[in-house]
Amino acid sequence: MKLYEFPTSGNCYKVRLALAQSGHAFERREMGRNDGSVKSPDFLRVSPSGRVPALEIKPGQVLVESSAILFYLGKGTALLPEDAFHQAEVVRWMSFEQDSVLPTIAIARFIKKMLGVPKDREGEYAAARAAASGSLKIMEEHLEGRSFFVGERYSIADVSLYAYTHLAPEAAIDLSPYPNVLAWLARVKAQPKHIEIYG
Amino acid sequence: MKLYEFPTSGNCYKVRLALAQSGHAFERREMGRNDGSVKSPDFLRVSPSGRVPALEIKPGQVLVESSAILFYLGKGTALLPEDAFHQAEVVRWMSFEQDSVLPTIAIARFIKKMLGVPKDREGEYAAARAAASGSLKIMEEHLEGRSFFVGERYSIADVSLYAYTHLAPEAAIDLSPYPNVLAWLARVKAQPKHIEIYG
Repeated sequence: MKLYEFPTSGNCYKVRLALAQSGHAFERREMGRNDGSVKSPDFLRVSPSGRVPALEIKPGQVLVESSAILFYLGKGTALLPEDAFHQAEVVRWMSFEQDSVLPTIAIARFIKKMLGVPKDREGEYAAARAAASGSLKIMEEHLEGRSFFVGERYSIADVSLYAYTHLAPEAAIDLSPYPNVLAWLARVKAQPKHIEIYG
Repeated sequence: MKLYEFPTSGNCYKVRLALAQSGHAFERREMGRNDGSVKSPDFLRVSPSGRVPALEIKPGQVLVESSAILFYLGKGTALLPEDAFHQAEVVRWMSFEQDSVLPTIAIARFIKKMLGVPKDREGEYAAARAAASGSLKIMEEHLEGRSFFVGERYSIADVSLYAYTHLAPEAAIDLSPYPNVLAWLARVKAQPKHIEIYG
């Protein structure tokens, strides 16, 4: 398999983490964020939408959207529960991640870490950072009395939510008001075959 | 099963359509949009996040988020392909729907149909309506040479995308530049056990 990615993107890290933990062999293909490489004819032949992460399973069979790739990699492994209800709950939390973590923690981190909060994006940064607390509160409450997000076992729902949540400090978002979230982050980090986003 | 819903919500309609087509018996529980009923202690006992649609499968087993409910209802039926790649593609297109149809067509339709485009939301309405054309273009291109979104068969991906796309005219969004989309809408509408949003 070939993973086309931005190495510092949390969405790409999700996929790399699930690839490492599901035991698939894969090659990394680094794309540039600003060099037009995702719009190049070569890449558009692989991934017509020009989006990363894109996972080429074999020539002509490509998946985009991190939740879809996680689902594919988890299927048939310990990373995805087998029964319909728990699978649906995994979809639910990946949906929450897309809905409530990407536009808050992930955007705030991008503006802060990648752009250094330029003047014209200060308002957007402040709004995303403020909205993050609503998302973290929902996660904190859900994790009360639970070890993981779905069915008391580590799954791709945790992989998905971990990616940007553990990067909250890069957005200058303080996680100390969320002890359940902090304990869960430590549990995720302690999973076998865990890899870090950088390096 | 009990479906807690706003009857005119496209997200709730998705679930009702999948319920009808997957052959489950269900009761409808209509919630008010403005009467506080989703914040009532009775409802919060059922669905702690206070969100609709919420599907109570049995007492104590409740699913929220329309994509998660669709996944649950589709599982094991003709509405969800069985192999991992096509299931992942279904997740991908439900993710696209959440990402690219809800903030565009659905928001424009809400502001236009439900609120009548109040002065202070004119800008938001115009932006959502303009952004809808980008999403429709992606759908139009994907449907070139295809009958349905995934694996050449009708699935919950189509149910998800149909709900708000077929309501685009309520947002004053003209679908005539998208002939593939129009032909696909007609195919979805012609499926066995199809139901309409109103009535």
